[in-house]
Amino acid sequence: MRTNSRAKTRESKMPRAECSDRKIKNLSGVIAAAFTPMHEDGSLDLARIPQIVEHLVNDRVAGLYVNGTTGEGPSLTGGERRAAAEAYVRAAGRRLPVIVQVGHNSLFEARELAAHAQAIGADAVSATPPMYFRPAGVGELVTCMADVASAAPDLLFFYYHIPRMTRVELDMVEFLQRAAERIPNFAGIKFSCSNLHEFQACVEFAADRWAVFFGYDEMLLSALVVGARAAVGSTYNFAAPLYHRLIEAFERGNLPEARRLQGLSVAMVRVLLHYRGMAGLKAAMKLVGRDCGPTRRPLIALTDAELEAMRRELQSIGFFDFVRA
Amino acid sequence: MRTNSRAKTRESKMPRAECSDRKIKNLSGVIAAAFTPMHEDGSLDLARIPQIVEHLVNDRVAGLYVNGTTGEGPSLTGGERRAAAEAYVRAAGRRLPVIVQVGHNSLFEARELAAHAQAIGADAVSATPPMYFRPAGVGELVTCMADVASAAPDLLFFYYHIPRMTRVELDMVEFLQRAAERIPNFAGIKFSCSNLHEFQACVEFAADRWAVFFGYDEMLLSALVVGARAAVGSTYNFAAPLYHRLIEAFERGNLPEARRLQGLSVAMVRVLLHYRGMAGLKAAMKLVGRDCGPTRRPLIALTDAELEAMRRELQSIGFFDFVRA
Amino acid sequence: MRTNSRAKTRESKMPRAECSDRKIKNLSGVIAAAFTPMHEDGSLDLARIPQIVEHLVNDRVAGLYVNGTTGEGPSLTGGERRAAAEAYVRAAGRRLPVIVQVGHNSLFEARELAAHAQAIGADAVSATPPMYFRPAGVGELVTCMADVASAAPDLLFFYYHIPRMTRVELDMVEFLQRAAERIPNFAGIKFSCSNLHEFQACVEFAADRWAVFFGYDEMLLSALVVGARAAVGSTYNFAAPLYHRLIEAFERGNLPEARRLQGLSVAMVRVLLHYRGMAGLKAAMKLVGRDCGPTRRPLIALTDAELEAMRRELQSIGFFDFVRA
Amino acid sequence: MRTNSRAKTRESKMPRAECSDRKIKNLSGVIAAAFTPMHEDGSLDLARIPQIVEHLVNDRVAGLYVNGTTGEGPSLTGGERRAAAEAYVRAAGRRLPVIVQVGHNSLFEARELAAHAQAIGADAVSATPPMYFRPAGVGELVTCMADVASAAPDLLFFYYHIPRMTRVELDMVEFLQRAAERIPNFAGIKFSCSNLHEFQACVEFAADRWAVFFGYDEMLLSALVVGARAAVGSTYNFAAPLYHRLIEAFERGNLPEARRLQGLSVAMVRVLLHYRGMAGLKAAMKLVGRDCGPTRRPLIALTDAELEAMRRELQSIGFFDFVRA
Repeated sequence: MRTNSRAKTRESKMPRAECSDRKIKNLSGVIAAAFTPMHEDGSLDLARIPQIVEHLVNDRVAGLYVNGTTGEGPSLTGGERRAAAEAYVRAAGRRLPVIVQVGHNSLFEARELAAHAQAIGADAVSATPPMYFRPAGVGELVTCMADVASAAPDLLFFYYHIPRMTRVELDMVEFLQRAAERIPNFAGIKFSCSNLHEFQACVEFAADRWAVFFGYDEMLLSALVVGARAAVGSTYNFAAPLYHRLIEAFERGNLPEARRLQGLSVAMVRVLLHYRGMAGLKAAMKLVGRDCGPTRRPLIALTDAELEAMRRELQSIGFFDFVRA
Repeated sequence: MRTNSRAKTRESKMPRAECSDRKIKNLSGVIAAAFTPMHEDGSLDLARIPQIVEHLVNDRVAGLYVNGTTGEGPSLTGGERRAAAEAYVRAAGRRLPVIVQVGHNSLFEARELAAHAQAIGADAVSATPPMYFRPAGVGELVTCMADVASAAPDLLFFYYHIPRMTRVELDMVEFLQRAAERIPNFAGIKFSCSNLHEFQACVEFAADRWAVFFGYDEMLLSALVVGARAAVGSTYNFAAPLYHRLIEAFERGNLPEARRLQGLSVAMVRVLLHYRGMAGLKAAMKLVGRDCGPTRRPLIALTDAELEAMRRELQSIGFFDFVRA
Repeated sequence: MRTNSRAKTRESKMPRAECSDRKIKNLSGVIAAAFTPMHEDGSLDLARIPQIVEHLVNDRVAGLYVNGTTGEGPSLTGGERRAAAEAYVRAAGRRLPVIVQVGHNSLFEARELAAHAQAIGADAVSATPPMYFRPAGVGELVTCMADVASAAPDLLFFYYHIPRMTRVELDMVEFLQRAAERIPNFAGIKFSCSNLHEFQACVEFAADRWAVFFGYDEMLLSALVVGARAAVGSTYNFAAPLYHRLIEAFERGNLPEARRLQGLSVAMVRVLLHYRGMAGLKAAMKLVGRDCGPTRRPLIALTDAELEAMRRELQSIGFFDFVRA
Repeated sequence: MRTNSRAKTRESKMPRAECSDRKIKNLSGVIAAAFTPMHEDGSLDLARIPQIVEHLVNDRVAGLYVNGTTGEGPSLTGGERRAAAEAYVRAAGRRLPVIVQVGHNSLFEARELAAHAQAIGADAVSATPPMYFRPAGVGELVTCMADVASAAPDLLFFYYHIPRMTRVELDMVEFLQRAAERIPNFAGIKFSCSNLHEFQACVEFAADRWAVFFGYDEMLLSALVVGARAAVGSTYNFAAPLYHRLIEAFERGNLPEARRLQGLSVAMVRVLLHYRGMAGLKAAMKLVGRDCGPTRRPLIALTDAELEAMRRELQSIGFFDFVRA
């Protein structure tokens, strides 16, 4: 567990925390937006987490993003979010950095979740903005996020930009500029939006100082070419090998191959979206032998018949081949 | 505190609980969507609640709706929501029915809040739908709300329909029909939407069996004329006398006077909205001597200069006269 | 035909035009948002217009609003809009005032349509704002509408506020204040929005100087009670008798009866909306013996089977009784 | 001028029209979304078009897209759209293919504009969907576009997908599949949306049979890497040399250089958007010596002071260097 405060670590030359921080900011590759395993009745099934993490370690994912959209974080109670975060931190065992998503309509609750993430030894926190009442502008968004970040001062903080869910549609370049000044542990943005021009402007402003994780698996190649180094997403839970090959092809300059692999990702995501997105994504874990159980309400989990239909559609695009290394 | 289960109360002829339930469903007049008093730093200032409730009792409001939009419920932690609910239930002391709003992005958390409301002796619960993930249709919405309602089986349950905040824009007539069948303690809807045709259709379907509380203070007269009996709103905290006179004029058939009074309400609300809506509303409490402190982030409380400017604007429309009986 | 310029008419004491203008501003009752009759292939079938107008005259509607949403104005060519306007003006034969809707994404085209409306002897023009590019604020909206209005300087001008179609969601009170100053022939607003508080504020500001026509048939009673004098809508084409009785009941102070009649309107509109709104509305004309043909693409006209199903649903709510006097 | 009907051309082995068609479908590089030059009062200033086209020919743009968003097509009258199309076709003199945008809220008007485009010898037509009333689904959209396309049967037809303006947000893969079956002269899509996964799926489905022009200049590189061959956009009017270098760098596999150049485009577009987007874009033409006059209402043209401020901002990012070859 990390016990030094940021203030203290700054006094030493190269403290463990800063070293770790640098590593997180400089993460490259794919970070799994982890699922929260559930029993059929929707209650948590945390016992499945160690095995899920082993798979992800074997799949060489670069990190874990817990309690985000994929993890149905907003659908969990405060207690469940804490329990899921603890289970993932424990299972990761420092082999993988763990970022805990603590966003909540209540900034006070988000602060409590952030403090908890620090107490249990997570590596970073991340937060969506409040969305029942929404910040009126970039300045207010920065103030809100500074609130949250200050509750976990020893951890890095990443803003979670996902306007299609939150309706908080503010300019991320301006946010980055102002957050960097006002949030001491600010580390960057999880950018889950298709505006790649805004993403590129963020990446260029961030340079080596902040991370801008890209959050649209099915557009990864388009983000790589304008500077993405790391990405957070749900399909990295079961299709990491595909994306590793994509990234390698891209880095070798083999763009036709990278494009072909991205095309497989696009085809896969189109099938999953057809099966209600989140519900289809979580069900895909069952198909690859990493069962995480159903989604929780208000999402509607797939029926057995739907699961079988989805399996056939995925098979027809070669899914069961390309999700393996 | 109510300790009998609904199952038990049904055995007796006219148990206290059912008697109370009937009273709540048949409420008439204005129900205050209560503010949550806060200190300057945004922490709760519950000590102010008894005095606020005395004022509301004196103002003859018909009930209290706690932890709703006006109460900044979504901005509070679970613990704070419980504390505010307890303080209001205690201060009301059964002189006024108390409806506790328990909506949350997590239905499990909403259930916990509902169970708590029952445990502390609230009269009813009400809930917004989850809004990070949203119910896909009316059927799923009913299922979600049945979940919440079943956690407080001895209390009445009101769905809180406020699509401009939640983006859950489903047909309320269909909801009412299906909720009535599937939720044993279903009691009606808090209808905070300007579609008065949908409201009227709900009122007619509901008849005497369910309540449809109207939630747009500045359109109250238009709702009365199509059948509203009770309304829930924020300006009833400080301008109940105005609305009593409006309702009385309406009931006496003095429509010109009712219209004139509604016009004052409209003028007042336009000023308050100009001062950022929620922030202006809460600040208005200060101007009438019922200080509830500032709003909490992400809302931005009025500065002293803004408060003074708002005071002058309100004065110019006669606000300080018409908010008194 | 009116040939005097507005400048001239102002010199005389009580010119015919001003007299007529006053009449239009002070219209009371229901104005039919006229359908544009079409053949099965979508081409205009103007020969049906005289008979439609006779029905409307017999139904004592207060005026005609041509080429609006109900008239599928935006789906017509410039030539067709002119032809439909001419046919309605001719058929009305000064027995009913005719307001021609000339809104267009091109303000220049709107100006041409407005000039044409003046040339053919219409009584007033009305316009939606441009909506491909949208005015940035109230000031720019006023400027745009001043452009259109100035092309028909002898006619009254009504702004057509229908934000659910145009996405131009600006404050109508502010618009009214500024339009009144800058548009010499400004006459008011066709207000097709459910915000009755904004409507009431407009009505009060307008007083006797401008008209604020209400545009939501299924909420008419709620608008009457806050000051509506005239309304424009599609169901007035076939159900005017119902609304006459509603208005009479309201004016006699018989609110229960007014509410009951509004309830019939709500039930009727719910059926029509279920049959794709515009398509159902136009098909209803067939059911009452005033066949206007199908809607034009992109709207999808009812099939015969759908028409029959709608007929049965309407019958079950007593439609065929209450649409007659 | 092309006078053979499509039916006829199909009889011959390799008619001129098909040859030309193939060329347009296989266009590569950047197509200028041409401005419509205007006088200070907003009237057309077509005399400027020949010089503008000479510049574009010199800049080696691959084609002209006339009367689109950049050309303020929706703000022009039918007569003006015809005149602008004629002027561009004449000035192009077959050195550049000319695609005429004919979308209109009225499909009948769109058909007339399409027929005119064919009569004057344009190479292709393109259309936005109707947007006052919107097609209810992909099937209806295809039907609507088939209507328009059939009015210019000798020309290729491109659907113009720009959901942020039209709110027609239907799946383009499904559209492509169905349009290809039902529209004989269907040629592809102008894809002005940031969903690159959908774009890639379209490109892969289209293969060599249809074109999918990308319409977001500031994201061009991200589109190239997933298969874009040609792009249509406004900044290609004055910054084509920048994009040529970008495409060349991309094709040589020099991705760092391509990314650097895209970064300049992003910076430039951010400045232009800050100056009200369309207004800033058109004003930029003045700054590079290709004055097209102001934008027309409802857009608000830059004031002289704003233009000077924009000039300085553009200068600070090196704009005046990189817009030259």
